[in-house]
Amino acid sequence: MTAGVAFHVDATDGAARTGTLTLPRGVVRTPAFMPVGTAGTVKAITMAEVRALGADIILGNTYHQMLRPGAERVAALGGLHAFSRWDGPILTDSGGFQVMSLAKLRKIDESGVTFQSHIDGAKHALSPERSLEIQALLDSDIRMQLDECVALPAAPADVERAMRLSLRWAERSKAAFGKPEGRALFGIVQGGDIPALRLESAAGLTEIGFDGYAVGGLAVGEPQATMLEMLDVTAPALPAEAPRYLMGVGTPEDIVLSVARGIDMFDCVLPTRAGRHGVAYTRFGKINLKNARHADDPRPLDEASDCAAARDYSRAYLHHLVKSGEMLGAMLLTQANLDYYQTLMAGIRAAIAAGQYAEFAAAAREGWARGDLAERG
Amino acid sequence: MTAGVAFHVDATDGAARTGTLTLPRGVVRTPAFMPVGTAGTVKAITMAEVRALGADIILGNTYHQMLRPGAERVAALGGLHAFSRWDGPILTDSGGFQVMSLAKLRKIDESGVTFQSHIDGAKHALSPERSLEIQALLDSDIRMQLDECVALPAAPADVERAMRLSLRWAERSKAAFGKPEGRALFGIVQGGDIPALRLESAAGLTEIGFDGYAVGGLAVGEPQATMLEMLDVTAPALPAEAPRYLMGVGTPEDIVLSVARGIDMFDCVLPTRAGRHGVAYTRFGKINLKNARHADDPRPLDEASDCAAARDYSRAYLHHLVKSGEMLGAMLLTQANLDYYQTLMAGIRAAIAAGQYAEFAAAAREGWARGDLAERG
Repeated sequence: MTAGVAFHVDATDGAARTGTLTLPRGVVRTPAFMPVGTAGTVKAITMAEVRALGADIILGNTYHQMLRPGAERVAALGGLHAFSRWDGPILTDSGGFQVMSLAKLRKIDESGVTFQSHIDGAKHALSPERSLEIQALLDSDIRMQLDECVALPAAPADVERAMRLSLRWAERSKAAFGKPEGRALFGIVQGGDIPALRLESAAGLTEIGFDGYAVGGLAVGEPQATMLEMLDVTAPALPAEAPRYLMGVGTPEDIVLSVARGIDMFDCVLPTRAGRHGVAYTRFGKINLKNARHADDPRPLDEASDCAAARDYSRAYLHHLVKSGEMLGAMLLTQANLDYYQTLMAGIRAAIAAGQYAEFAAAAREGWARGDLAERG
Repeated sequence: MTAGVAFHVDATDGAARTGTLTLPRGVVRTPAFMPVGTAGTVKAITMAEVRALGADIILGNTYHQMLRPGAERVAALGGLHAFSRWDGPILTDSGGFQVMSLAKLRKIDESGVTFQSHIDGAKHALSPERSLEIQALLDSDIRMQLDECVALPAAPADVERAMRLSLRWAERSKAAFGKPEGRALFGIVQGGDIPALRLESAAGLTEIGFDGYAVGGLAVGEPQATMLEMLDVTAPALPAEAPRYLMGVGTPEDIVLSVARGIDMFDCVLPTRAGRHGVAYTRFGKINLKNARHADDPRPLDEASDCAAARDYSRAYLHHLVKSGEMLGAMLLTQANLDYYQTLMAGIRAAIAAGQYAEFAAAAREGWARGDLAERG
């Protein structure tokens, strides 16, 4: 571990773990869910609210911020924490994933990737070294190596090539990171849906040595069963004393099942994006508030919630806001969804600590299956 | 005054007054600014925040709510207060102004107005009686008569016809209102830019007798000087013991000048709409955050503000949010603008109470004239 960074597993229950990742800017209780702060903001919510809803750490996207407002500008303004008014830990991705999904005219070779901005068409380059330089300018607390993430299904030869390239970039990333006190660097396991490649990637990264290990290249088109199978293979191959981060995942069910396989950290746009599209995540599953059946429903999303957005507003009102395209609909559903995710994570942590994770997971799945109309009966 | 409604002038300074309008759902400190809650929401902000920023009362639009979600539906859900989670007083307009500005195929005659919804083209009718019925279904605290508002410049004959029609509708509105305890009905002075018609309208309304008197048909295209001249004529002709409400006004300067002429209540979409379009209102005038000169500016909008949105975020960050189309930009600027407006109203009330309104108004105007770059020097 880099000096000033510490991870401690406080309790385990089967493969599930609960612990604390300590960084100078704050302690992250794991398993942790990181709300995604794409462009210096978690969309449709203030950082104060993100914090109040229980987040210890957020994720920032390197790709978005290198393009706008620009990493050097953020640095001149005091770094991403001061700029966006979030004083806790921030994990930044490498930018590679968004280059592949958003940028135009991208070209990848050994040195890195060149691309055109999706905003203004300007040419940019990202290498392992430049990615780490940008993440240092943003002054994020946890930094990610640049990798190549292949969408599934993919030809085994492509998966293998990308995994090997990612491994070579991992070495260059480690060198470029240096040893900034109190900042952490995570490597990323690739290897698609091929167990042998996953194991080779995990071994290679462990050999290089990182403060934490991410599992990338999952939730990119494969069935959930394949994702879980890859976690069954990969997680035990990673150092038990370092945090494990499953990138871009996922639904509440994905999270519960992945924690059972030893994952400690998650990020996903799902709760915030769904909130902006009229969909709520609750104890009783997903509720699509665009649906006309909510128009006269006086019930809140969840009367037992601690979150005002979920407890105090009728579904009829939320439906009205969503149908009317009112920003408040996106704001309230973003709050309600982040609250549900963080409440789920708190429940997960408590259940592991109590040695009752299997029971907790079964109860959570039962609630989702019951559906939101059950209460009416 | 209707039983359960009371207005008391606590102090005067010239024609300016400060007082309290007492309603069962709360006390309104005047001069008051009412944020506009168009469709059951003040756009891009929660009601809890609207309250925290100093609003005693908000305005709800009858036109929007009769179309969506529908007045009968809101009534079935417990009325507009329960629906929108605002427990203080609400003033509803009559719907007439939006019919004229938003609806399609509108046709006005003695009985009322028929129109097509701008949302789905459905046919609707609004009469003085139906407007009061809708406002009763919403259960607003202050209800407005239906009137006909003519945009300026207009032919004197049109202005006169609309004023006379509005006066006849005022009588029908009074009859339709009934005497619901703790609810108030306001009449609306029309008469365009013609002093004699304004006086005739004011006298006619006073004869009918209302809980308060609005001045309508201003800020509809005429120069500011004309608006002020009409207030000079109209305000003294209205009963001193009732509140006077200038509809749809306005800029901070409009408000300061109108208070000096005896106006007690205001509503305007300006602070919220400007906030959604990247414009901030501050002690030092308007600041357009879309402008590139803010891109590297670490200063907040107003370091002396009590409002986090105005005090804690750099102009560079706000510029970034606005340029990126991030909802948080609209949210923060809406907060900052409503805070500035409510802080201005609090200053106005304190200055009148202290007998120093002229000095306050001069200082406010000096600040706006100084501009937001002055602090840099």
